[in-house]
Amino acid sequence: MLIVQKFGGTSVGDTDRIKNVANRIKGYHERGVQVIVVVSAMGHTTDELIDQAAKLNPDPPRREMDMLLSTGEQISMALMAMALEAVGVPAISFTGAQIQILTDGHHSNARIRDVDTTRLKESLAQKKVCIVAGFQGIDEKQEIMTLGRGGSDTTAVALAVAMHADECEIYTDVDGVYTTDPNKVQGARKIPQISYEEMLELASMGAGVLHNRSVELASKFGVTVHVRSSFNHNPGTLVVPEERIMDMEKITVRGVSLKSDQARISALDIPDRPGLAAGVFGKMAESNVNVDMIVQSSGHGGKNTISFTVPSASVGTARGLLEGFIKEIGGGNITVEENIAIVSAVGVGMKSHSGVAATMFQALARENINIDMISTSEIKISVVVSNTQARQALAAVHAAFGLDGNA
Amino acid sequence: MLIVQKFGGTSVGDTDRIKNVANRIKGYHERGVQVIVVVSAMGHTTDELIDQAAKLNPDPPRREMDMLLSTGEQISMALMAMALEAVGVPAISFTGAQIQILTDGHHSNARIRDVDTTRLKESLAQKKVCIVAGFQGIDEKQEIMTLGRGGSDTTAVALAVAMHADECEIYTDVDGVYTTDPNKVQGARKIPQISYEEMLELASMGAGVLHNRSVELASKFGVTVHVRSSFNHNPGTLVVPEERIMDMEKITVRGVSLKSDQARISALDIPDRPGLAAGVFGKMAESNVNVDMIVQSSGHGGKNTISFTVPSASVGTARGLLEGFIKEIGGGNITVEENIAIVSAVGVGMKSHSGVAATMFQALARENINIDMISTSEIKISVVVSNTQARQALAAVHAAFGLDGNA
Repeated sequence: MLIVQKFGGTSVGDTDRIKNVANRIKGYHERGVQVIVVVSAMGHTTDELIDQAAKLNPDPPRREMDMLLSTGEQISMALMAMALEAVGVPAISFTGAQIQILTDGHHSNARIRDVDTTRLKESLAQKKVCIVAGFQGIDEKQEIMTLGRGGSDTTAVALAVAMHADECEIYTDVDGVYTTDPNKVQGARKIPQISYEEMLELASMGAGVLHNRSVELASKFGVTVHVRSSFNHNPGTLVVPEERIMDMEKITVRGVSLKSDQARISALDIPDRPGLAAGVFGKMAESNVNVDMIVQSSGHGGKNTISFTVPSASVGTARGLLEGFIKEIGGGNITVEENIAIVSAVGVGMKSHSGVAATMFQALARENINIDMISTSEIKISVVVSNTQARQALAAVHAAFGLDGNA
Repeated sequence: MLIVQKFGGTSVGDTDRIKNVANRIKGYHERGVQVIVVVSAMGHTTDELIDQAAKLNPDPPRREMDMLLSTGEQISMALMAMALEAVGVPAISFTGAQIQILTDGHHSNARIRDVDTTRLKESLAQKKVCIVAGFQGIDEKQEIMTLGRGGSDTTAVALAVAMHADECEIYTDVDGVYTTDPNKVQGARKIPQISYEEMLELASMGAGVLHNRSVELASKFGVTVHVRSSFNHNPGTLVVPEERIMDMEKITVRGVSLKSDQARISALDIPDRPGLAAGVFGKMAESNVNVDMIVQSSGHGGKNTISFTVPSASVGTARGLLEGFIKEIGGGNITVEENIAIVSAVGVGMKSHSGVAATMFQALARENINIDMISTSEIKISVVVSNTQARQALAAVHAAFGLDGNA
């Protein structure tokens, strides 16, 4: 049996925690399980390095940032190897370069193309635990590349794919994926199994214990990902293909998420012509404005209305871009509604259940919460509410779908 | 013109110092000088990493130590590249792996075999300052190797050799090499020029501002090494071939060094037979006992006496080894004299001057300092004195050769 285990920054936050993780790995090794460990940088190492860089250069070259940040994982992996050897487990660490985690050439946000498994297989055959630096790879010119925030998750899944691992365990500081944020709703419960699609929708809404790209990769190759805590031995959440989920009773909504501090921008009475939306949102993407919900109401009188949400911090940029665009196409008015939040219910089960939207809207109505905007997809219903009513809305929707166990 | 500049840990101790160094390099770059920069790890980074390793494993695998420690230089070089870019100097950093600083396979004490200059030449042609991680290389299997303490000096000289640089500047926190330790003798003065051989003798005696292996390498290829401070623009000390030194007046003694806290061990009345010394000191070397002076008095009656000095910390080990050896060969007594020090006068000039030894001994006699042991070579005279009189002896010898300017 071969398992890839990824330990995040909190799990390797100091030498005591590294020892703790080493003992956990030892347990697997003693049972004859082959283990490949992927480590993140210790605790706040990455942030500290970023701070140092900022002191020297407000806009540091991305190549050099990658050079700098990749040291964090290299430190963790060497220390982890030492900790394993100290408890009698033979171990060997590898940089991204040493096992040729080949990426494209996009510094600070590279994507993995291939992994050379030769040295890993050799070392596993020698009964060694292999430790691999997360978050890093190299391009064809042997330039050091990083995979972006959360990239260690992607490293772990990529190794699980390349090595045909039986499972990929992602160790973090929470017990798994919850039906909603336990800090915001008391009745939040751990989800035993979740599909890739549900995980993606929940993660992108800020419930993120797993990096989205890692879930996409796992989905593509059908890798079972087990999200669990490194501080206890409780089973966590299994992220699996939809068809593999066994619910005693089919669940319609798997989880409810909240995204606060958003703003809605609307362009009213703009000419209705093809390519309009592409034009607006193309400009937003170019300027790295993260647009979430988009709703276009059907035009009347040849005029159209498009509304969309952006994070509060991007309102200025988004508004500016939109104003320029409206001038170009001749006509339209802009309104901005700040201090809004998005509440989303996610579940593959809702595909086959009617009435999910109705349940959600009724729950909000009962609490006198006004819905400002609605958007639905196959497995997700999102509503915009005011920031001040956001938590109340979250709890109401969470309860309405019986996720707090009181259905 | 091409210069290799090496900046030690103190010179890049924090971001302000890195900025300071970046501005210094900018001055060279603006004058059209091609610059290759070698950096050490920042300040106490290496020690901190060693401490962390020690917490996890009292005897960490050397491969993993190299993996760990090599991150220190990688951090410095990336930050240095950012600092240079911030002041408008195009820069690019390279790990030992990226420019294939090829070493042998001795982890933690590897020796450089070759350097691939392709990327350096390419980058210099693009008017970039190249920054190279000191202290590290890779072996044929792409394993990360470190060169041992002070290894960054060796990296700098090796690059100067490979790139046919015009000069190799070693920036440190002192102004250059002094006639003796300025903290111990008030009259100590900076030496403008010193030969490789003199530097080697002084460095190995603890006057070490330059790593010995770097001096050996510079000597082998005739590289001019300029030891100077990164905190001012004073000229430092040039380390050059003996024949290139221009002294208005030939100097016999270039410097005087002191090595405190040593011990003398003597084996008396041991059988006089070939291979004896080889046997004794072979064992010492195997156990990493650093033997310095060795004196063997001519045997009489088929019996022999060998005396040698070791650091105080090694007395126990050395004595134990010697006792075992004496049992083996049947006969002899051991005496140990602790709390001694070695004062050495070094200078290539003494080869052609008689009376140097006499001057030294007279100076010590005038101060009523007893000489316990004497050893001489072509360019060095060493005497053993008691620890308590060591500083007095150092000052007396320093003055006797006019090194304090009062000759």
